[in-house]
Parts: sequence; C-alpha cells; structure tokens
Amino acid sequence: MLSPLTFSQIINKKRDGKELNQEEIEFIISGYTNESIPDYQMAALLMAIYTKGMSTSETAALTKAMLYSGTTLKHNSTNVVDKHSTGGIGDKTSFIIAPIAAAAGVDVPMIAGRGLGHTGGTVDKLDSIKGMSTKVPPKRFKKQLEEIGIVLAGQTKMIAPADRKIYALRDVTGTIESIPLITASIMSKKLAEGINGIVFDVKTGSGAFMAKKSDAKALAKSLKNTGLAFGKDVYTMITDMSQPLGDKVGHSLEIIESVEVLKGRGPKDLIEISIDLAGAMIHLGGKAKSLEGGKKLAKKMIKSGQALKKFEEVIKAQGGNTSFINDYTKLPTAKFRHVIKSPKDGYISKIEGKKTGLACITIGGGRNVKEDKIDLGAGFDFHCKVGSKVKKGQEIMTIHHNLKNKQQISSLEENFISDIFKFSKNKPTSPVLMVETKSYFSKIKK
Amino acid sequence: MLSPLTFSQIINKKRDGKELNQEEIEFIISGYTNESIPDYQMAALLMAIYTKGMSTSETAALTKAMLYSGTTLKHNSTNVVDKHSTGGIGDKTSFIIAPIAAAAGVDVPMIAGRGLGHTGGTVDKLDSIKGMSTKVPPKRFKKQLEEIGIVLAGQTKMIAPADRKIYALRDVTGTIESIPLITASIMSKKLAEGINGIVFDVKTGSGAFMAKKSDAKALAKSLKNTGLAFGKDVYTMITDMSQPLGDKVGHSLEIIESVEVLKGRGPKDLIEISIDLAGAMIHLGGKAKSLEGGKKLAKKMIKSGQALKKFEEVIKAQGGNTSFINDYTKLPTAKFRHVIKSPKDGYISKIEGKKTGLACITIGGGRNVKEDKIDLGAGFDFHCKVGSKVKKGQEIMTIHHNLKNKQQISSLEENFISDIFKFSKNKPTSPVLMVETKSYFSKIKK
Repeated sequence: MLSPLTFSQIINKKRDGKELNQEEIEFIISGYTNESIPDYQMAALLMAIYTKGMSTSETAALTKAMLYSGTTLKHNSTNVVDKHSTGGIGDKTSFIIAPIAAAAGVDVPMIAGRGLGHTGGTVDKLDSIKGMSTKVPPKRFKKQLEEIGIVLAGQTKMIAPADRKIYALRDVTGTIESIPLITASIMSKKLAEGINGIVFDVKTGSGAFMAKKSDAKALAKSLKNTGLAFGKDVYTMITDMSQPLGDKVGHSLEIIESVEVLKGRGPKDLIEISIDLAGAMIHLGGKAKSLEGGKKLAKKMIKSGQALKKFEEVIKAQGGNTSFINDYTKLPTAKFRHVIKSPKDGYISKIEGKKTGLACITIGGGRNVKEDKIDLGAGFDFHCKVGSKVKKGQEIMTIHHNLKNKQQISSLEENFISDIFKFSKNKPTSPVLMVETKSYFSKIKK
Repeated sequence: MLSPLTFSQIINKKRDGKELNQEEIEFIISGYTNESIPDYQMAALLMAIYTKGMSTSETAALTKAMLYSGTTLKHNSTNVVDKHSTGGIGDKTSFIIAPIAAAAGVDVPMIAGRGLGHTGGTVDKLDSIKGMSTKVPPKRFKKQLEEIGIVLAGQTKMIAPADRKIYALRDVTGTIESIPLITASIMSKKLAEGINGIVFDVKTGSGAFMAKKSDAKALAKSLKNTGLAFGKDVYTMITDMSQPLGDKVGHSLEIIESVEVLKGRGPKDLIEISIDLAGAMIHLGGKAKSLEGGKKLAKKMIKSGQALKKFEEVIKAQGGNTSFINDYTKLPTAKFRHVIKSPKDGYISKIEGKKTGLACITIGGGRNVKEDKIDLGAGFDFHCKVGSKVKKGQEIMTIHHNLKNKQQISSLEENFISDIFKFSKNKPTSPVLMVETKSYFSKIKK
C-alpha cells in the first residue's frame, strides 16, 4: 500500500504533464474506491487530468482499473455487440437497433443509463412501458441473452462502481468534459457487459455534449483506441445533433416513434441513422460481411417484422406489457396539447437541440436533479425539420403537457418562437446526418 | 449567496483559462473559510489555478480576500517595513536585519513562521532563547512596536485564517508551487502586519523552493506587482541559495552566528546579504535616500553596537534572557561533536543546499511532520564554502548532535562526503550571491 505522500507525488506527476503507469493508475482507482484517498486529492488529480490529458495507454489502464472495480459479464457467444451513444435530443435509436441486430442473430447485452442534463435517458424511456423492469440481475441477464439474444437493462451498483463514484465527483468539480475521463467512464461500463464489438454513435452539434466536430472526432478516436487496446472491434460513427433526432422528444413519445420505425414508418433521419447503426452492429456481430450487407439485413429485419417481434420478446422477457404496440394510448399520455404555429413565411433554419432538451425539462420531461420525478407523457412533436418550407400560421410543433399554468405554456411558446426555432428567407443547407463512419477490427485473437 | 452550481461555473471559468473577477474571488475565499465550499471543489479550483495561472489583478484580489479573512494591524507610523524570505538553508538574516533596521529608526513588525520541509523556521530558531515568547497579542504588538520599533512574533490564527486553511489543502493536492498562490499566501500575511514597505529576499538555487532562476524572477515580479497593487513600496532581491548561507545550520547555531554578525564578526556571505537587505529596509523606511545610503547606515548600526543593543531590547521585551549574547553555552547545546575531514586535495565545488537541509532533519534539527520535536542544539558548522581550497584530512565541517547510534553518524558522514560535498581539481567559480536587486516605489498616496 502506497502512502498519502505517494498519492501527492502521483498528482504532481500528472500536473507536470507526465505519463502515469499502470500501477499508479490502479492505486488511484482502488484507493479512491476503498476511500483511502480523500475526495479533495482525487479532485485535484481529476483537474490535472482534465488540463494535461492522458495518453492512449493511460486511458486504457484507467478503463481497466475502473472496469475491474466491479462485476464483469462473460458470454459463450462471440458475436456479442452493443452500441453506445454519447447522447442527444430525441435520440431513441437503442429501442430500434437493439431489436434489429438481435433479430439478425447478434447478441445485444445493452446496459443503459438514466438521463441527467439536457438529454433523456434510455432507462427512463423504458419506464413508459407498463410492467417492464430494467433491473436484470447477472444470472437472469446471462440466461435472457442466451435465450433471446437481447437484454435492455439499467446500470447496477455492481458494474464499475469506481465510475459511479468518480462521475459524481467530476460532476461538481468542472471535470466532466475530459476526453480520457469520458472514455474510461463509457468503456469501463460497456466492457463490463462482456462484448466483442461495439458501435459508438458520437453526437456532434448544438444538442450534443461534444458540440464541436473536432471534439467529437477526438472522442471517437479515444474510444476506438481504448476499444482496440481491449481487443474489441469498433465502429465509430459521428452523427449530427444540431437539431433533435426524429420528430418526437419525450419519454413515451420516443417509444412510440421507435415502434413506428420498427413498423416500417417514422421519420427519414431516424430511419437513416438507425439503419447505419444497426448495420454496423450486424457487421461487427459477424452476421454480414460489410456495413452495406449489415444495412441490407437491418432493412430486411424491419420489413419482415422480425425486429418488432424481437422488441416484443425483450419487453415480455422483462415483465412488460406489449399491448401498447398496437394501441399507443396504453402508454403514459399527457392531458393537454398545445400547437405552435409559424410566425412567418420562410424556411426553418435551426431547431436548437440543447435548448429543446432544456425546454423539455421545464415541462417535466426531464430531470434537473437526480431526485426529480419525470412526467413520462410530456414532450414535443415537431412537424418540421431544418430546411422545411413553412407558411405563416402553419402548425410547426405540438407540445404534450400537463401544465395548468397558462402563463408557463405561453412563455414556453415564446421561447420556441424566438430562441429555439430560427427562420430564414432562403432555403438553408440541411445538416449532414452522418458526418463520419470508421471501422476498426482488432488483431488480438478472441 | 451564490449556489454550488455557481462555484462549479467558477471552476470551469478558471479551468478554461479565463480571468476571475473580484466578486468571484471573494466568494471563493469567504465560502471556503466558512466551509460552504467543500475541500474537493476547492482542490479542483486550486489545480485549475496551478495549471492556468492568474493575472496580476486576480492575484491582488485573491491576496485582498485572504488578507481580510482575518485581523489586520494598523500603525500611526508610516515607516513600517518588513522583510520576507522565501526560505533557504542557514537563512538567519531576520535576526540580523530586523535589529539593524529598527536601530536605524525603521519600525519592523516581523511576523514569522515555523519550519516545514527542508528549511528551518524563524520562530523555531527563536525558541532557542530562554524565556523568549513569540506569542504577541495584537495590543501588546502595537505597543511594543511604538516603544522599541521591533517585534519578532509568530503567526497567530487571527492573521489570514483563509491562508492557513488553503495552505493545508495545497500541501496535499500538488498545488504548492504556484506563483499566484504563493504570492497571495505571502502577501496576505505580510500586509496584515500593517507595513508600508517590504523587502523580498527570493532565494534561488538547489537549496531554495524556487531552484530555477527563471521561477525566482517570476515570483519576484508577482510579489512586486501585488505589493504595488496595495500601494506598498517594494524591493525584490534574488539571492543565491545553491549552498547554505553563512557557516552554521541549526537552530541555536544560527542564533549564535547572527549575534556574531551583530558583533561585527561572522562569515562574509552572511554579512553581505544582511547589509543589502537591511540597507533596502532602511531605504524603504525613509531613513536613507538610497540603497547605498541604507547600507552605509546599516554598517554603522553594527559598528556602533546599536543593532546588537536593539536585538537585546526585543528579546527582553518578549520575556527572553539575553545572557547568551556574551555566553553562547546558555543556548541549547548538543552533547557531541563529529568532525568530517576532506577525503582529498582540491577545491569544494558544491555544498548541496537542499540535501543539507534534509540531513539536518535526520539529526533532529528540523521537522518531517508538524508534530516532530526539534533538537535545538543540533546542526552543522561548515569550515569551508564553495571555492575553498582543501587538503586531504583537513577539517571541513563539524556536526553538532545528540545521536547515540554510531552507525547513524557514520552514514551521515558518508552522505556528506559522497552526496552533499562535491570536490574538483580546478578552482570552481563561486556562485554570485546577489543575483538581482530591484526597487519599486508606489505612486499611490499613503
């Protein structure tokens, strides 16, 4: 056991921009997890990491130490693949692509988080489905994956507990937006699932955590490097989040839109991204020889109804009632609708992603703090995208809400009209949806 | 009162290299002092300050907030001057120059610290004098300064309590060696003394905290800028600490050497630095029109015996017995002497300052941790300096100690011969004692 003095020396080393070795990183994580290292020393170290960065091997060592701070799953199958998105507004692809990939024969052990900040959480959205439990203990997890090839579970305290503790500290010490720290946080949890391959959907644009393209690329590179260091096959896809993905934002609204896509309908942008991500998962899972082949198979899974059937299977396996699939009123529904109309003729030139997410919190469709209860029925339904031609008075969105205070809803409308939507006289260029796709196959024998 | 979220935003601002305003800095210091800001957030902020630095106005605002976290002294006199040294091995100039300057008519309200790390503390050294108390309450402090123009006191909890709390955190979070943080720590305590002018002795070389000359210059500049921001007159002197200052290192040994200088004897380097520093104090205190004039007056104060008389006065005023001045055996004395002889013919090319300080701790003449008791009689008496010609077998130093373990003393000798002293065949160039002297006079009316 190293002394506190030695921990100070580790802080100094990182502060001076030097590389930490594996032993030092393991000492940090075990010491912080067992509380022999106090919060204030860890906070100083995290800030030093934030400002000085970490090399690929440091990031891999940090990921490893955090990964082995808790339980890890192991599977017999070698075509175990998951997707991780860095999060965005209206990002509901998990409910679409996990069933598609599983229907195509890939094993998908998806462990997802709850929402905090301006983006919604996958697990919160699943709460819309009556009876469905996202608490899946390890034994049942393994069995369900073997039987139906898909699990949609929430994080447990057993998975990467070091990450939980470090994340809470990062949240209050200005050390969230650090690429090595984000990488280790994501990777330690994903690797604990026992995957062989992973597809990263790194969002960029105003609604994403990595708003700048250069930051998104740097994060994608770091995730790829760490994935390869663990012998995993990796896809990194950088996708647009300058406006909400799809038309619907809000918990049950997003479940509805996902089912629509699985039924072969739904908005064009959401379909495109879902097919790309599912295609990549299928390719990594060895069920297609290329991304193109994977995409073809993904489309087939929708068309044949097999993907929707797989979604029903996983809901049933986790205790959920699937009647909502043919009757959306079985999902939590907001009492009121408020329609917003375009104030002018022209084109929609912007729908600010982050501000949309923050607006959703104000109507109860998100959390300010961990303890907030979510209104699962609340949300937004957009009737336009960036580039849509609109006429004055045309309905551009519907707010689903349970607000009784009329003042609140009119100030929300004001917020949308003057701050979230931007209008232009000339047709704007639509944002490129898929910014970059890269794939990497590990040379390490599995 | 700002919320914790706002403190996170302050961390982010500094982390991103932006300038904090006065209100934000006051919020930090008051929040940390009243414990509404937790250690871990302060630690993250300190590391952000360490890596991103602070502007002159930020450093001044930090100094001000720390200064007003506690009591400040006010004096009627406007020739109140002190000296601050950044610390080094054998640095006992305070006992020499404070009496000289006071004898010349300058008011010297010196508040000094205890030693930690490889350098000795002024207050610890005064503990060698029987009966002398360095605990001087504010009222008595003011009265004594008015009556005899000199106080040699220890820090109290009432002076800059924010600094005490922040320093303890910096000590364990790798944020000691930050120029703005060092500046605010020093200046907040010195300004609390109610000074009009201050002489900074910034040490450089292997025995100093700022080993590199460029760091010493940067610290001197920062101290000067902050002093001027508070309307104070400032001298910055950068002086050599590549070898111990004077011949003696250790608590009572350094008191003896100081008295020797006040008696007109003592080693050349210590006399030179003392006259420079005292001359600068006298100039700042308005008792001479130039540094040269101040130095002349300083020499006169020694020659006439007035400086030594002033030293006796301050000791008596603080309850001390002055009989040691004519009989050094009245001071704590070590039982044993161990003489080290030169292992070869040649020149002394180095006496490693920091290693000498650390060696002094091993014989009890310093602290490893705050709780350690000091052996006031233990120390080293060097019979050579860098550049001295020595013959094999010639006595080069005497260790004063109370060690019973012979093994310990022989390994200490080994340490000196092989690691602290360096020998050369050719005469080395002696280090320049006074590297740089600069003076700055405030334009702000007092």
